[in-house]
Amino acid sequence: MQYSEKKGALLIMEKTLVINSGSSSLKFKLYAIPTEEVLASGLIDRIGINGSSVTVKYAGKKYHEEVAIADHAVAVELLLELLRKLHLIASLDEITAVGHRVVAGGEEFDHSVVIDDEVIRKIDDLSDMARLHNPANLLGIKIFKKLLPNALAVASFDTAYHHSMPAKNYLYSVPYEWYEKYGVRRYGAHGISHRYVARQAAAMLQRPLDELKLISCHLGAGASLCAIKDGLSFDTTMGFTPLTGLTMATRSGDVDVELVNYMMKKLKITDPDEMISILTKDSGLLGVSGVSSDMRDVIAAKEAGNERAAMAVALFVKNIVRYIGQYYVEMKGLDGIIFTAGIGENSVPIRQMVCDELAFMGVKLDPTANAKGGENIISTPDSTISVLCVPTDEELMISRDIEIIKLQQKEELSQDEKPLL
Amino acid sequence: MQYSEKKGALLIMEKTLVINSGSSSLKFKLYAIPTEEVLASGLIDRIGINGSSVTVKYAGKKYHEEVAIADHAVAVELLLELLRKLHLIASLDEITAVGHRVVAGGEEFDHSVVIDDEVIRKIDDLSDMARLHNPANLLGIKIFKKLLPNALAVASFDTAYHHSMPAKNYLYSVPYEWYEKYGVRRYGAHGISHRYVARQAAAMLQRPLDELKLISCHLGAGASLCAIKDGLSFDTTMGFTPLTGLTMATRSGDVDVELVNYMMKKLKITDPDEMISILTKDSGLLGVSGVSSDMRDVIAAKEAGNERAAMAVALFVKNIVRYIGQYYVEMKGLDGIIFTAGIGENSVPIRQMVCDELAFMGVKLDPTANAKGGENIISTPDSTISVLCVPTDEELMISRDIEIIKLQQKEELSQDEKPLL
Repeated sequence: MQYSEKKGALLIMEKTLVINSGSSSLKFKLYAIPTEEVLASGLIDRIGINGSSVTVKYAGKKYHEEVAIADHAVAVELLLELLRKLHLIASLDEITAVGHRVVAGGEEFDHSVVIDDEVIRKIDDLSDMARLHNPANLLGIKIFKKLLPNALAVASFDTAYHHSMPAKNYLYSVPYEWYEKYGVRRYGAHGISHRYVARQAAAMLQRPLDELKLISCHLGAGASLCAIKDGLSFDTTMGFTPLTGLTMATRSGDVDVELVNYMMKKLKITDPDEMISILTKDSGLLGVSGVSSDMRDVIAAKEAGNERAAMAVALFVKNIVRYIGQYYVEMKGLDGIIFTAGIGENSVPIRQMVCDELAFMGVKLDPTANAKGGENIISTPDSTISVLCVPTDEELMISRDIEIIKLQQKEELSQDEKPLL
Repeated sequence: MQYSEKKGALLIMEKTLVINSGSSSLKFKLYAIPTEEVLASGLIDRIGINGSSVTVKYAGKKYHEEVAIADHAVAVELLLELLRKLHLIASLDEITAVGHRVVAGGEEFDHSVVIDDEVIRKIDDLSDMARLHNPANLLGIKIFKKLLPNALAVASFDTAYHHSMPAKNYLYSVPYEWYEKYGVRRYGAHGISHRYVARQAAAMLQRPLDELKLISCHLGAGASLCAIKDGLSFDTTMGFTPLTGLTMATRSGDVDVELVNYMMKKLKITDPDEMISILTKDSGLLGVSGVSSDMRDVIAAKEAGNERAAMAVALFVKNIVRYIGQYYVEMKGLDGIIFTAGIGENSVPIRQMVCDELAFMGVKLDPTANAKGGENIISTPDSTISVLCVPTDEELMISRDIEIIKLQQKEELSQDEKPLL
């Protein structure tokens, strides 16, 4: 295996493929290692559905093709073939590692791991908690294992970062047996993103991460806040599932459980899963505004005088602000607020509205820096709490985890004086 | 009617009866008006159940009798007969007003009202949202109307105080039609208590209530926090129903709705109401500790080394603290924290633990004042935020509302130059 090429004698450029395998899509990024250069990125969309397509961006170019893709196996074969055809790899052997994003890691996984049969079994066991995501993630893992048997396969979990939460922040006030026997607790999500932007923020603030109290606001179609203390996740808004917490594009965030029962009776729905589907797909910005699930559309409608759109924006901002208040008190202080992901990186007005609510605490945005966006400190130098815009990069974080694992493997091998494989 | 005795010519001592009618119990307090002296208080318990009894406390004495009480009508007749027998009233005519606590007032009622047929109909309509409470409240209202037809009948709602909440604090991020058509929103509870203690706190702090930012912590078997700004409820922890918010004696407070679905499958429960029952009766302090729903027992178990009891206390405190953080930021500041109701008034360690978490904000408890309890400012003079212990008195608040209504009725009569009835 390539990762055993130690002692720096051979400075071979390795390539790492990072995969996010969804139920009907497959996103990827191909990195050159150790330069971390993105050689290619892209998406295979609508797998097993009419109108499937593949898109690859590389070297400033874009390849797009509409082509029938029956299943994930066909998708992966197509992708690997395309990487060769576009001269992004000369042979499959060049891909020395594949990193897979896995949504639910339960209590099992507190860091990225090398995927073996045991790991596959555990990810499968956890499907109960992420019915849409884990089976799709596993599908990708198994196909890549088969097609690239020599590549190091690593799983990075969206939940792993939140393992450091204290029990009082992850337990619900429900019968304790539900936790012991059935794993009912807060797991959180977006952990890879929160971990990445926290590290970037510490570097930008030129302070050690473990001395900072940070709140990371990952605001995409899915959205969560993470309170980061001592460099670790201390609390987060997503719960047992990614339905809870903030107002999201189409997800409700926190609601009273009893309204589910009440609305089942009103709407004459008998299957609780149907209610969860409404709270997952027809709620949030879309459900309140009636306009769109896209914040840009909702803000445009608000500016055109649409009252329900204005209310959707108000709820979105309110729910971010209230959790910032919660985490400020839970962490007993706050050094920095990080905005990331689609809305967090790009919505100047949302960042402004959130920070306006915190002005009484001495938070001051620099309007020019805020308008500029990008990786940037957007508060004024005299702001009591720093505010940062940090584009997230979950794939890069996964790729870096793979390098750490390679290093650990080399160290283990040399410490044990095992022969190189 | 007695309430038209105006011009102060006749200074007749009137008596007001305040009633809290539950599904199997009836609590009462008899006041002398205008002195607000409590002439008697008591409880008729286990109505329609084996082992029913009546207890009346009056003039330092206690009357207790175990007697079969078939229904609420029998209970009310027994009570009125007993008030006569114990010489607390000479005749029924002395009771010039009866105030009823009503749990759910929906969007209809934003203050206490005189009960007429229209009000009865509306309380009945709202039973959907408070299946256990409103029908029991109505039962009491109807029987007193019949037995004391000349007394002024007033309804005071637990939800009314929260009418001042802005929409962003009462709306959920669910399909907007659920609010418009079915009234799905945050209504809150304990409004009579929050309103009472806020007024007391302002008097104790010798500052106008409408200039204060307060958080009222009503911590009983049911528990809620209320953010009070400009003298009005600005936000509260209870939601569509009183199941949500804080960790309570047996109620879960906030949970992820998806865990209900998940646990239904695990426990093979098909009726969602059965899950709500577990979250209402078997959760909270009881469910987490496995010891008791009574905070005194849970703290004793914690002190004896019981880890689950310690966790139950930690969750209870954490959930209070996180909402204090939320409301601090939502109100953009905080002048005072009020502790009230069973745990709030009596638990020295809980008040201490909550305030310890706020020490970083400059909150300082005076240990002697905290240990003393009673109506008392329990923070030190240099505490940045005042902390108060205020025994609640919902019945007195209802009785005062009745006096305001009497005054308004008199004014309306004199302004319109209507003849006295």
